[in-house]
Amino acid sequence: MSETVPTRETIEAAHQLVAPWIHRTPVMTSQFFNRLCGAELFFKCENLQKIGAFKARGGLNAILSLSPEQLKNGVTTHSSGNHAQAIAFAAAKVGAKAYIVMPENSPLVKIRAVEEYGAEITFCVNTPEARQETVDQITEKTGATFIHPFNNYEVIAGQATATKELIEDVKAHLDVIVAPVGGGGLLSGTALSARYFSPETKVYAGEPEGAADAVLSFRSDKIEKAPYVKTIADGLLTYLGDKTFPIIKDHVTDVLLVSDEEIIAAMRYLWERMKIVVEPSGAVSLAAIIRNKEAFTGKKIGVILTGGNVDLGKLPF
Amino acid sequence: MSETVPTRETIEAAHQLVAPWIHRTPVMTSQFFNRLCGAELFFKCENLQKIGAFKARGGLNAILSLSPEQLKNGVTTHSSGNHAQAIAFAAAKVGAKAYIVMPENSPLVKIRAVEEYGAEITFCVNTPEARQETVDQITEKTGATFIHPFNNYEVIAGQATATKELIEDVKAHLDVIVAPVGGGGLLSGTALSARYFSPETKVYAGEPEGAADAVLSFRSDKIEKAPYVKTIADGLLTYLGDKTFPIIKDHVTDVLLVSDEEIIAAMRYLWERMKIVVEPSGAVSLAAIIRNKEAFTGKKIGVILTGGNVDLGKLPF
Repeated sequence: MSETVPTRETIEAAHQLVAPWIHRTPVMTSQFFNRLCGAELFFKCENLQKIGAFKARGGLNAILSLSPEQLKNGVTTHSSGNHAQAIAFAAAKVGAKAYIVMPENSPLVKIRAVEEYGAEITFCVNTPEARQETVDQITEKTGATFIHPFNNYEVIAGQATATKELIEDVKAHLDVIVAPVGGGGLLSGTALSARYFSPETKVYAGEPEGAADAVLSFRSDKIEKAPYVKTIADGLLTYLGDKTFPIIKDHVTDVLLVSDEEIIAAMRYLWERMKIVVEPSGAVSLAAIIRNKEAFTGKKIGVILTGGNVDLGKLPF
Repeated sequence: MSETVPTRETIEAAHQLVAPWIHRTPVMTSQFFNRLCGAELFFKCENLQKIGAFKARGGLNAILSLSPEQLKNGVTTHSSGNHAQAIAFAAAKVGAKAYIVMPENSPLVKIRAVEEYGAEITFCVNTPEARQETVDQITEKTGATFIHPFNNYEVIAGQATATKELIEDVKAHLDVIVAPVGGGGLLSGTALSARYFSPETKVYAGEPEGAADAVLSFRSDKIEKAPYVKTIADGLLTYLGDKTFPIIKDHVTDVLLVSDEEIIAAMRYLWERMKIVVEPSGAVSLAAIIRNKEAFTGKKIGVILTGGNVDLGKLPF
C-alpha cells in the first residue's frame, strides 16, 4: 500500500485501472432542484454504481494494485456497509479470497450481499476494537492484506475517480462540489480530483449533526471524535484518519452540518423528483446545499450522491 | 394533426424537435438482471425523463407541431396520469395554455404536478364518456386543440424517439425490445422505430393480466376491451385505438401477460438492484421478460422502463 498522497498521475492511473470494471455513472440534472436551490446542480449518481455505491471504486483500485503474491493470500477488511460489499465484489473480480469482518448486528440484507460475492464473513461484537482485533487475527492466520475502508491512499485514489468523471462530464465549469464526510475517503479523493482537474472549484463537505466529528477536527486542526453519534446516515458514523484528515484540512473549504430531518427530506425529494433510490448518507450533500442555499445562489454545483443501498422495508417515510 | 402513420423521416424530425427539451435518458445495464434472466438486458430509463415518464416526448412533439395560430387557443386533453403532466409541461414550454380534464378521484400528487406547470384543471366524473364530453366542451368554448393520450400520430412519433435513442446508444444489435402496452402509443412508436432503425429486432409487448385487452385484440384482429380491469399498473388500463392497433398488429411479435405479483416483484427488483424508482406500469416489460426468460435465453434485449411517478406513501412493498 502506498505511503504518499495520490498525485494527479496516481488518480489518472487509478481511473484507467478501475474504469473497465465499473459504471461510468450518469450526471443528472433537474429543473426542480435548480429552482429549489437557486443554483445549477449536477448530480453524480454513484448510487447507480456497481454494488450501489462509490465504494466499488476504492475497493477495486486497492485490490487491482496488489501483486499476484499478495492476492494469493486474499484481502480482508471490517465494515458493516458498502465497503464490505466493495471488497467482496472487487476480490471476486480478480478471483481473490475476501475475508470480511462484520458486526454481528449487521442488517441481513448487507450480509446477504457480501455472501453473494462469495466472501467469507466473520462476525464480531460491534466495537471498533473488536473489529480491528478480528481483522488482525485473520491477517495473521491467512496473510491476507488489510484494506482499510478509507485511511488508505489506494482507496482514496479510487474514490477520487468519481469526481474526475464528474468534472469531465459536466461541460460547464463547476464553482463548487459537495460530498459527504464519514471517514473522509470520498471527501479527500474529491478534494484531490478538484485540485488537480478543476483547481478553481471549491469543495465543501456535508456532515450529519449526529456524527459531527469532521467539523470539529476541521476547526481544531486535529482529529476529533463526535460529541455524540446518532444519525440515520449510517455510512458516516466514523471519524477521520491520519491519511484523510490532512488532505481535507488542506483542500476543503468548509464542513456543513445537516440534521436528520434535512437528510430525510433531501432523500425523499431525490426519490420523488429524480426517481432514484438514494440512501440517507447519499442525500447529505444535497441536504447541505438546500440548508445553505443563500450561500450558493447562482453557482454551478457538483453534488456527489454516494449510494443507494437501503432496506425498502424500513424507509423513514 | 397528421393522418398518416409516422415514417422514418417523421420520427427523425420529431426527435430533432423534442431533443432540446428532454433528457437523453441513460441506458443502464446490470449483471444481476443479466444473470436472473440469462440474457443481456439494456434498460432505457424513461422513468428518469422529464415529468418522470416517456410521455413528455409525445406531448412535446404534438404541441411543437402545432401552428402559432393553433397554440394561441391552447391545448386540451383528458388524463389522470402522466399524459396530463406531459401536456401541461409541454404547453408551459411554448407558453401555450393547457386545459386538463382529470377525474375527480385523481391522486392529489398528480393534480399538484399538473398545477405546478400552470395548467387549468377541470374535474369530471371518472367515466370515458364524461372525460370526452368535458374535453369537447372545452374545445368548443376555447378553440383549444385536443391531444389524445395515444391515438394521435404526433404523439406516437414522439414516443418512438425513446426507442430510436435506445437503438443508437446500445452498441450491440438488439434481438428484442419489450415495451408495455396500454393504449398503445408507446408500443406503436417502439414498433415503428425498431422497424426503421433496427429492422431485425423483434418487438414484444408486456400487458397486465388485469387489463388484457391488447392480447385479445392481437389474437382476434380487432380492437377488444379487457374482460375485466383490475391491476396495479394504473398507466395501462385503457384499450387500443384505431391508429395504434394497426401498427401494433403489423409490427409487434407478441403480447405477453404478467400478473400484478410479477409486476410488483419486478418493480421491487428495480428499486433494490438498480436503485431507480419505477412505477408499476414501468416494470411490466421486465416482468414479462422474467416470466418468459426461457424464450429469451442468450438474447440482447432492450427494456423500456416507462415511468417513475409513484406515491411513496402507498408502496406495494
